[in-house]
Amino acid sequence: MPVKKSVTKKVVSKKVIKKDYAKMSLALHKKLKGKLEVISKSRLLTRDEWSTMYTPGVGAVSSHLAKYPKDAREYTMKRNSVAVISDGSAVLGLGNIGPIAALPVMEGKCAILKEMAGIDGFPIVLDVHTVNEIVAVVKALAPTYGAINLEDIASPLCFEIEERLKAELDIPVMHDDQHGTAIVVLAGLYNATKVVKKKFESLRVAVVGAGAAGRAVTLLLIKAGITDIVVTDSKGIIYKGRAGLLGYKRQLAEITNLGQKQGDVLRAVTGADVVIGVSGPGTIAKVHVSAMAKDAIVFALANPVPEIMPEDARLAGAVVIATGRSDFSNQINNSLVFPGIFRGALDRGVNNITDEIKLAVAKKIAGLVKKPTADNVIPPVMTPGLVKAVASVIR
Amino acid sequence: MPVKKSVTKKVVSKKVIKKDYAKMSLALHKKLKGKLEVISKSRLLTRDEWSTMYTPGVGAVSSHLAKYPKDAREYTMKRNSVAVISDGSAVLGLGNIGPIAALPVMEGKCAILKEMAGIDGFPIVLDVHTVNEIVAVVKALAPTYGAINLEDIASPLCFEIEERLKAELDIPVMHDDQHGTAIVVLAGLYNATKVVKKKFESLRVAVVGAGAAGRAVTLLLIKAGITDIVVTDSKGIIYKGRAGLLGYKRQLAEITNLGQKQGDVLRAVTGADVVIGVSGPGTIAKVHVSAMAKDAIVFALANPVPEIMPEDARLAGAVVIATGRSDFSNQINNSLVFPGIFRGALDRGVNNITDEIKLAVAKKIAGLVKKPTADNVIPPVMTPGLVKAVASVIR
Repeated sequence: MPVKKSVTKKVVSKKVIKKDYAKMSLALHKKLKGKLEVISKSRLLTRDEWSTMYTPGVGAVSSHLAKYPKDAREYTMKRNSVAVISDGSAVLGLGNIGPIAALPVMEGKCAILKEMAGIDGFPIVLDVHTVNEIVAVVKALAPTYGAINLEDIASPLCFEIEERLKAELDIPVMHDDQHGTAIVVLAGLYNATKVVKKKFESLRVAVVGAGAAGRAVTLLLIKAGITDIVVTDSKGIIYKGRAGLLGYKRQLAEITNLGQKQGDVLRAVTGADVVIGVSGPGTIAKVHVSAMAKDAIVFALANPVPEIMPEDARLAGAVVIATGRSDFSNQINNSLVFPGIFRGALDRGVNNITDEIKLAVAKKIAGLVKKPTADNVIPPVMTPGLVKAVASVIR
Repeated sequence: MPVKKSVTKKVVSKKVIKKDYAKMSLALHKKLKGKLEVISKSRLLTRDEWSTMYTPGVGAVSSHLAKYPKDAREYTMKRNSVAVISDGSAVLGLGNIGPIAALPVMEGKCAILKEMAGIDGFPIVLDVHTVNEIVAVVKALAPTYGAINLEDIASPLCFEIEERLKAELDIPVMHDDQHGTAIVVLAGLYNATKVVKKKFESLRVAVVGAGAAGRAVTLLLIKAGITDIVVTDSKGIIYKGRAGLLGYKRQLAEITNLGQKQGDVLRAVTGADVVIGVSGPGTIAKVHVSAMAKDAIVFALANPVPEIMPEDARLAGAVVIATGRSDFSNQINNSLVFPGIFRGALDRGVNNITDEIKLAVAKKIAGLVKKPTADNVIPPVMTPGLVKAVASVIR
């Protein structure tokens, strides 16, 4: 047994390091010197082109918009633009690495917006880090864009920032780390539940991790009809009356864990049909999966190193296993969601991405997998028609 | 004579309205729905492309930048990007029309940056309008970009905003309405002076208008060696001790008008070799030009309607006449300046656009006209090699 364990570990660490992608990515970024380019839709080769694209002609457009600001949708880039904004405080699994280091991730998101949905994404990294400052800056620059995608902002600040911006701006605002993740988890769970032939509303769920994604997943699963959810953080199960429980975790204690469980992750997952890991590597072990109900569903979403590697989860009895990685089956990836949501919101002038919309998107994405199997509960990001399908339910 | 006058007026007003460009521009903007597009330099068609452009590979780039933030020049868009930022408080000749109405102008500027200099321009219009707010917002988002082009921000706020940002940021900051205008005026004046065969340093200059451009033109002409300058505002000549003189106008009174002149525009221009109009239509009349010295130089730069129409200035005795318009000879146009300045600053990491650089750029642009004549004191914006020539003196 010890020998076998050590072999497994070696395989894992090799896969974990992914040296090839790191090297390939550094080389690609150095070659491209930035992944985005801002181009003009029209040339400036003649005097007439100058006079219509710029002064004096553009003065007529500005005068028109001074009178009819809503027409910015017809005459400016606002109609098709999304600002992708981060303060670099919670970037990928790397944590608080600051705005400059967050920039390549935001550029990547903008590349995805264009390649998948034809949206013009404008990356913005901010050197301010309090709720008030971030809200003030985003409000100040909001007239420029058709929508705001908040990204990689640490919890709990991200909750208040998103809530205030949603309330105070007249364009859609979405923190993708929360809602993109929650929607795609729900989509995968709809199909996983079919594979194991259980009743969705009766699922017993353990959410391991109570950050931005953990909270959003929990809230959306409740909206979807699941009642038996236990959430854990670094101190174990969140329950009413736990010492030192503050803010949003206190709210989570009110609406989850109806059985008033207390204890560690093992206690949380024992007997559960579903475990959703949104924490970090090593928080879910084989012993946890073994303690789950029959035909267990394990979503281990930490990136790039999952809470438990798929082969370990399978050895411990899991039937459906999903991760955030493209090199395993069932990739739970926000990119399935955000391009289509913004496409639909921009096209139809939808300003509020409601819970109803999120549920509809999850159903739509789940429906793209015609015959769900253990290795196919979620469509790949390159599924033809994906963006159009998601956009179609944004109303 | 009255009949002739009225005919002239008709011709003028036809040219002034420029209905064709207004209509053409509205139609073009409606067709394009925004003049810019943000594209990805690399496709996202395979898993490998996803994994190098985005996660997991991009994590290696972010980790690298967390350690070596200066390498953002090598790995991100920062190296080639300029934010074009306005609060919409002084847009073209339209005044304070707000951020939304300013957006098509900023988009136009970004189109020019790309078409002329290959720079990725990011338009940002702000819904805040005090010095402290604008400075705070621009500082917050500065890590994203390689340089900041302030645009169409009202004076006197624009002066303090630019000064503070220059002092507090480690990337180049330039308010183009001030320095772009000043540089191209100086370039034109170098050649105009040759045409009338006068000595540059001995020129007597009247600057009609004491806003952002008027102040910057005055300061740069003084740097260039001109000592005899009188500046007027809506109350007439600016002089030491004038009642109610505050702030930067008080500073102008200290360094101009050494002869202590008082009075109106006519008094200011009487005997002048050069009049530079940076105010608005109608502030310079034939009677003013007639009162100037022999071989008068008239730059009437209000846009789209100049302070005096070229034919009127010529009738009144002016020899070299320049305007801001493309349909007359000698177009004094900022677009001659800002693309090359930002190209050079980005390429060489020059953070401070000093007075010495401005003087060098003006000389360089003037030198592009091999044989200056009354109708050719400034090169057209489409001059081959213009951007490269300007960029070459940014050191």
